[in-house]
Amino acid sequence: MKASDPNRLDSATTIMGIDPGGEVTGIGVVRREGNMIRMVACGASRARKGESIAEKLCRVFRFVQEIIEEYRPEVLAVEDTFYGRNVKSLKSISQIRGAIILAGALAGVSIYEYSPREVKKAVVGRGDASKEQVQKMIQALLGLESAPKPHDAADALAIALCHSHRRQF
Amino acid sequence: MKASDPNRLDSATTIMGIDPGGEVTGIGVVRREGNMIRMVACGASRARKGESIAEKLCRVFRFVQEIIEEYRPEVLAVEDTFYGRNVKSLKSISQIRGAIILAGALAGVSIYEYSPREVKKAVVGRGDASKEQVQKMIQALLGLESAPKPHDAADALAIALCHSHRRQF
Repeated sequence: MKASDPNRLDSATTIMGIDPGGEVTGIGVVRREGNMIRMVACGASRARKGESIAEKLCRVFRFVQEIIEEYRPEVLAVEDTFYGRNVKSLKSISQIRGAIILAGALAGVSIYEYSPREVKKAVVGRGDASKEQVQKMIQALLGLESAPKPHDAADALAIALCHSHRRQF
Repeated sequence: MKASDPNRLDSATTIMGIDPGGEVTGIGVVRREGNMIRMVACGASRARKGESIAEKLCRVFRFVQEIIEEYRPEVLAVEDTFYGRNVKSLKSISQIRGAIILAGALAGVSIYEYSPREVKKAVVGRGDASKEQVQKMIQALLGLESAPKPHDAADALAIALCHSHRRQF
């Protein structure tokens, strides 16, 4: 396939995965061109001590806005809330997801949601894979020298890869 | 007390109450000057048919932003999530609350949260008051000719009055 092949250009997509957390929100940006996929960026935003919910939502919203502005993803893939959580934690994480989805939607980015099980199944092949298995597979799939850190960033990359796999096949 | 009394000016506050809902989000704006309180505005934003969660969050976020821009409240009082809900509904409403609190926080408005029970107790005097009792009391307290509609707007005014009462005494 030539570099100027329009099909190749059409299939190029930048995907931003997000792992929302009450304390740490991880992000991972990957770029798929044809059958090749590479990591563009990953990182995390951490809660400040004694942060109010209003401060937390502003911090995460601005963090996601900045990453969108810098890497211009076409897709934002967010991990869906894990229903086994307790009610207080479910409420807190859902509020944060609201701010994240809003940041994407206001920027005109397409939003997709995947459950933790779907992400593990897409990346490792098993819905009950361990955190370490996910990290090792992310490292292998993206050809990284070491596992991405913090693990929230690795999880976010897994969510982005999950979207990529689900759309590809 | 003279109109030019600085204490009187200091005590003037515009409070925006919000009742977040999956289908309808009610708002009510009240202004307190000294011991007087009056309604400034009330209304509601309703979901469109087949609205995605991203569209819903954008609609509610912009609605709250517009009201803040028009009435410049110092305080945003939001009804806290009712924990008796089912998990799916708790998740949905918490995401909407995230967008609402974010709209207030980005505009530099102070955010307060009150449970449905606190609101009923502050307005009617009983935490288990009925919806009709709340509406009648709102009408009486604000000297309105009829009960505010839709009831989501009345509930939002109740939340604003709850904040006003709690801060006053």
